[in-house]
Amino acid sequence: MSKPANRLRLGMIGGGEGAFIGAVHRAAANLDGRIQLVCGSFSREPGNNLRSGRALGLADNRIYPDWQSLLRGEAALPPAERLQALTIATPNQLHVPIAEAAARAGIHVFSEKPAGINFREVADLARTLADNGCHYGLAHTYLGYPLVHQARDMVAAGTLGRIRKIYVDYRQGWLADGLEYSGNKQAGWRTDPAQAGASGCMADIGTHAFGLAEFVAGQKIVRLCAELRSHIDGRQLDDDGAALFRTDGDASGVLTASQVCAGEENNLTLRIYGEHGGLEWQQMQPDVLIHRAANGDTRLLRAGTDRDYLLPGTRRGLRLPAGHPEGYLEAMANLYRDFADAILTGSENSVPGIDHGLRGMAFIEAMLASHGNWISL
Amino acid sequence: MSKPANRLRLGMIGGGEGAFIGAVHRAAANLDGRIQLVCGSFSREPGNNLRSGRALGLADNRIYPDWQSLLRGEAALPPAERLQALTIATPNQLHVPIAEAAARAGIHVFSEKPAGINFREVADLARTLADNGCHYGLAHTYLGYPLVHQARDMVAAGTLGRIRKIYVDYRQGWLADGLEYSGNKQAGWRTDPAQAGASGCMADIGTHAFGLAEFVAGQKIVRLCAELRSHIDGRQLDDDGAALFRTDGDASGVLTASQVCAGEENNLTLRIYGEHGGLEWQQMQPDVLIHRAANGDTRLLRAGTDRDYLLPGTRRGLRLPAGHPEGYLEAMANLYRDFADAILTGSENSVPGIDHGLRGMAFIEAMLASHGNWISL
Amino acid sequence: MSKPANRLRLGMIGGGEGAFIGAVHRAAANLDGRIQLVCGSFSREPGNNLRSGRALGLADNRIYPDWQSLLRGEAALPPAERLQALTIATPNQLHVPIAEAAARAGIHVFSEKPAGINFREVADLARTLADNGCHYGLAHTYLGYPLVHQARDMVAAGTLGRIRKIYVDYRQGWLADGLEYSGNKQAGWRTDPAQAGASGCMADIGTHAFGLAEFVAGQKIVRLCAELRSHIDGRQLDDDGAALFRTDGDASGVLTASQVCAGEENNLTLRIYGEHGGLEWQQMQPDVLIHRAANGDTRLLRAGTDRDYLLPGTRRGLRLPAGHPEGYLEAMANLYRDFADAILTGSENSVPGIDHGLRGMAFIEAMLASHGNWISL
Amino acid sequence: MSKPANRLRLGMIGGGEGAFIGAVHRAAANLDGRIQLVCGSFSREPGNNLRSGRALGLADNRIYPDWQSLLRGEAALPPAERLQALTIATPNQLHVPIAEAAARAGIHVFSEKPAGINFREVADLARTLADNGCHYGLAHTYLGYPLVHQARDMVAAGTLGRIRKIYVDYRQGWLADGLEYSGNKQAGWRTDPAQAGASGCMADIGTHAFGLAEFVAGQKIVRLCAELRSHIDGRQLDDDGAALFRTDGDASGVLTASQVCAGEENNLTLRIYGEHGGLEWQQMQPDVLIHRAANGDTRLLRAGTDRDYLLPGTRRGLRLPAGHPEGYLEAMANLYRDFADAILTGSENSVPGIDHGLRGMAFIEAMLASHGNWISL
Repeated sequence: MSKPANRLRLGMIGGGEGAFIGAVHRAAANLDGRIQLVCGSFSREPGNNLRSGRALGLADNRIYPDWQSLLRGEAALPPAERLQALTIATPNQLHVPIAEAAARAGIHVFSEKPAGINFREVADLARTLADNGCHYGLAHTYLGYPLVHQARDMVAAGTLGRIRKIYVDYRQGWLADGLEYSGNKQAGWRTDPAQAGASGCMADIGTHAFGLAEFVAGQKIVRLCAELRSHIDGRQLDDDGAALFRTDGDASGVLTASQVCAGEENNLTLRIYGEHGGLEWQQMQPDVLIHRAANGDTRLLRAGTDRDYLLPGTRRGLRLPAGHPEGYLEAMANLYRDFADAILTGSENSVPGIDHGLRGMAFIEAMLASHGNWISL
Repeated sequence: MSKPANRLRLGMIGGGEGAFIGAVHRAAANLDGRIQLVCGSFSREPGNNLRSGRALGLADNRIYPDWQSLLRGEAALPPAERLQALTIATPNQLHVPIAEAAARAGIHVFSEKPAGINFREVADLARTLADNGCHYGLAHTYLGYPLVHQARDMVAAGTLGRIRKIYVDYRQGWLADGLEYSGNKQAGWRTDPAQAGASGCMADIGTHAFGLAEFVAGQKIVRLCAELRSHIDGRQLDDDGAALFRTDGDASGVLTASQVCAGEENNLTLRIYGEHGGLEWQQMQPDVLIHRAANGDTRLLRAGTDRDYLLPGTRRGLRLPAGHPEGYLEAMANLYRDFADAILTGSENSVPGIDHGLRGMAFIEAMLASHGNWISL
Repeated sequence: MSKPANRLRLGMIGGGEGAFIGAVHRAAANLDGRIQLVCGSFSREPGNNLRSGRALGLADNRIYPDWQSLLRGEAALPPAERLQALTIATPNQLHVPIAEAAARAGIHVFSEKPAGINFREVADLARTLADNGCHYGLAHTYLGYPLVHQARDMVAAGTLGRIRKIYVDYRQGWLADGLEYSGNKQAGWRTDPAQAGASGCMADIGTHAFGLAEFVAGQKIVRLCAELRSHIDGRQLDDDGAALFRTDGDASGVLTASQVCAGEENNLTLRIYGEHGGLEWQQMQPDVLIHRAANGDTRLLRAGTDRDYLLPGTRRGLRLPAGHPEGYLEAMANLYRDFADAILTGSENSVPGIDHGLRGMAFIEAMLASHGNWISL
Repeated sequence: MSKPANRLRLGMIGGGEGAFIGAVHRAAANLDGRIQLVCGSFSREPGNNLRSGRALGLADNRIYPDWQSLLRGEAALPPAERLQALTIATPNQLHVPIAEAAARAGIHVFSEKPAGINFREVADLARTLADNGCHYGLAHTYLGYPLVHQARDMVAAGTLGRIRKIYVDYRQGWLADGLEYSGNKQAGWRTDPAQAGASGCMADIGTHAFGLAEFVAGQKIVRLCAELRSHIDGRQLDDDGAALFRTDGDASGVLTASQVCAGEENNLTLRIYGEHGGLEWQQMQPDVLIHRAANGDTRLLRAGTDRDYLLPGTRRGLRLPAGHPEGYLEAMANLYRDFADAILTGSENSVPGIDHGLRGMAFIEAMLASHGNWISL
């Protein structure tokens, strides 16, 4: 019998044919061989749902028409067979309802971000999770990159001295046209308030930029002054914005996030400066962290299991020696691996959790409320 | 029942604790969820073997003490359970013996490179594979990178015109010291003629450079003039070398491969020039292909499923939209995916096969025989 | 007789031993052989002044103790000998007084930026210059870079469509410490309100960022919301700041300028996006302009007299074929060449002039006045 | 009197309208204000010659119809007026005849490379120079780059340990077409044996690559095995080639030089590795020297007068603080400055001299004689 006794049994909501992020979650969950997909409800469209599930090797009885029937159906299975954790890869407005129901059923949750569509519902979810002893992982994929941990740990160790400046920029161009009017599914729901919530760009990518800045700085952004815009006629949600901000450590900074920077791909960049130097990390070249010391000494900290100059927390997230590029899937795989380990072995859950989710919601709400004025969060 | 009916059942020889490439094969095989590891013999050391297999979720009866018992044991299982394909991740001298035995048992083979330790044994293996109708995949990982296919297809389409120059360089630094004298396992067998065969650096990485050049150029290297060296006292195999060469298309070029370029990681670079322009690809930044036209127009062809300017063969190998880096594991996963597809669905096997293996052996033997003189291969 | 009849006779105030920018002006003025330094007052310290002038090959009678005596002394010379233009490379508070006096004497002015220490005095200077028919060149060196002109002309030609976003960042690190307390001359006057005026960082480098953004966009920044800071105890002037802004073309953007980004050298970067694509230019790699089209097509526009894809206005500023790097001195030399041409030949003066100076003053005053509120300029 | 008493009086042969390198020499000579052009013979075509000279501000009597009349005419002038040094910027076959005549007249020589068209005539020139006490500067422009000196000095200081590998590549694309058949002047003489000598590409750029390798390594190349080619029908001289080589320090390496790498600009790159690490320098990004230590530590050594980590010999060649790019003209200006200093002040002449010229000739002759065999030089 080759039954893998030590794999986490995972279910998935969303991510059928035509979706982007569902396949990413599955590849990431597969990578380290610690997780097995056992059930799912991949699409509200029955044909798509069935085809998707079968293509993933699921038996028909584990392919459910909707998330409610999945939770019911799995509850009826013997404990050793039923899912242990559920990935939520749906439009935003369903994140909390599904997570709430899963947690009440004692199922751990791995959710796409943002955690929900407003702060209040996420705060409620936080309580439900706690009450039910459920782990929660938020797909802040970029926090799975090893050199992001290197940056965080260097800042925490005081390598840069007191932090003064934080610049974080997230530029995409894919919404530079009115893509939602030409039938693009991704663009469709992300620009629809009924599915995405009150924010478009800030919810989708602004939260990544915000989360990255707070994570690496080890500080909280406490005040900001933001301007959001929508550049396409008829688009109801923000597709672009920027904010000046201050942290609780008295650092100041700028956050920009835009999906109308035509020609840009997925350009997330963090630059952070303290008294003694600065760090720069670019997601599109994720295996390099640039460290500039105050005297101009410039070092490239390069990813690799064999790089002794990397900190232990960095090397934990690496699989390959230097010069063998790891990327986005490996970053998300790190989140899944830690999530699975926490559930299977009781190890500390270092995955961005519901607290990150709450911070993200606070960020979105502050960005929406600022209208060019300074506001606290 | 969630039994994945459509997964390839894979076994593995080698790749226990402390090995490098075995874990890489497993992650790559896992990534797309098309392959399931069902058995293995991971180490000659029983404790290592058992721990490795169990950590991978294998039942004890599918963890075999050696490759011979694996083949025997699996043959005794019902056809629907036994392995369909075998990954060989051992030192070089075992590649052919294991592949021969597997092929005779009707098992498809996915082998680390070089295919063997001399041309003759690989030629024999080619016949055995053909006689038994077995697929063979060679772990020319770099040929799994999508932009390498873009380069090949652009050359084939005549974008560069007639090819004149090919420069391929593979630089590593990890053998700059006498690492084999300090107990490093990798360095140990790779510098030992009994395990690695007659060549060190050329077998290990020269074959990659050679295979990449021939693949992209669509030409065969027919003559070369090489000098090999060993830079460490007592090291018996080459750790460094270079060759001038000519192709059957009358292009000329230079190939360098070295493992004593201290400080270099895994720097494989191809530059190819024709009448109308040139292409440059660097493995350490694999998501960019630089295309310089003769008039100086410089375009960056960047990886991404959403990049319309990429050719179909390129996009097939991509999983993510532009700006989401894919790397080395994804490249090898492409080989495994095509290999599994060929076996499971009968699709064309586009994985580098035994013919690549034979070319590699011819290359190694020519490099060893040249001693600074021009020689045909 | 080898007397160069067709060279502009230039004088200089400031730029003695220990100064930075004076030598830069001289090298830039020398480069094309169109300008001859004929007199100067390089330092208030007599020894420094004399040594500096002699080292530059000046006769003692053309080395003056101060700018007033220079203007007097030169007025007494025959017209064919006396200076035609004067470079002002002093601390800011002297820019306008010297320029006013020179203009009244009919001498053309090439001034360091900012043009003065407040908008009003620069507006007065503008009138004086007009009344006396004097040319005025402002050392907006970065506007001398050929690829900045390429960017401007591409924007003007509509290559990007309507402009939506402008991001301009200028990061330096040299004032991350309290350098002014350790006797550094540059740091001394630049942080002293009596010499630098009411602003430090915004006057010194913010004006460059602002001028670059307006120049390339071909739009005026009409509103901004800024926060300035001073990060060193006791430092009286801003050393850091950022602003959200809007243009008269309804583009929005962000400007950051900081001299406390420890480890940064002279990192001025412009990114500008329109409906159809974006451009990126980095001063520290000035021979590349990145053009990303909306469909992801990425081209590197590289400097070179032989690059047919560059616009005429770009190639005018280049001296060398592609692959022969030109830099900062060549950029300033372009300003000097155009300035000299305008005076000597009556050609159109394309050098940034007093209008740029006025815009810069308006920018500084708005930045100082904003205090985190939106303000018009 | 503003007569610059301390400037070197320079004459020039060649470099009229339509030439490339003449204007480069003049800009480089101008840059530091230490040199004054006093006479010249810029073209054999009288109109071109006169226009060129006048545009440079020369009086008609210092514009000579040919180099012979220049030497005669200048000899007739008072010593304080006549040229002290002569720049030779003609096709190769005239380098030695003019240099010989100049040296016999006691005039210092600054010559384009290669020094001549064969080893013997350059050896004779070396004696003439010595006999007449004349300085000789060879326009090995790339040896004027400050970070090339940094590399050389780091190697000499043992930072890399014993040198093992040297890779030097010089790739251009401008001769990828038969440009000489379309009236291009540069291409015309450089591919004409009567004007260029026996070698095209090796004489033109191979010598640069060779000189750079020897300079930085501090070793002599003693054996090589080369293949030269000509890729255009009817082209009589090599336009492409490569060589394996060994040095007197037992390092091995590869040199490539090609002018048919379509799309390449002026891509000269040096990589050198020793026991403890490696250095990489690329002419097209000349302000960065990459230092990789054996343990993978990667530092970017960046140009700047304010970079304390640069060695004194590096900083001597810099004019600007870090982040203000200096380029090709500044590199050549460094050669002119040192050359002028040696003549005017008797300081040590650190400019590449006749010995470099001789090495270059030995290199060319070996490359031509090798025909794919190992040969000593």
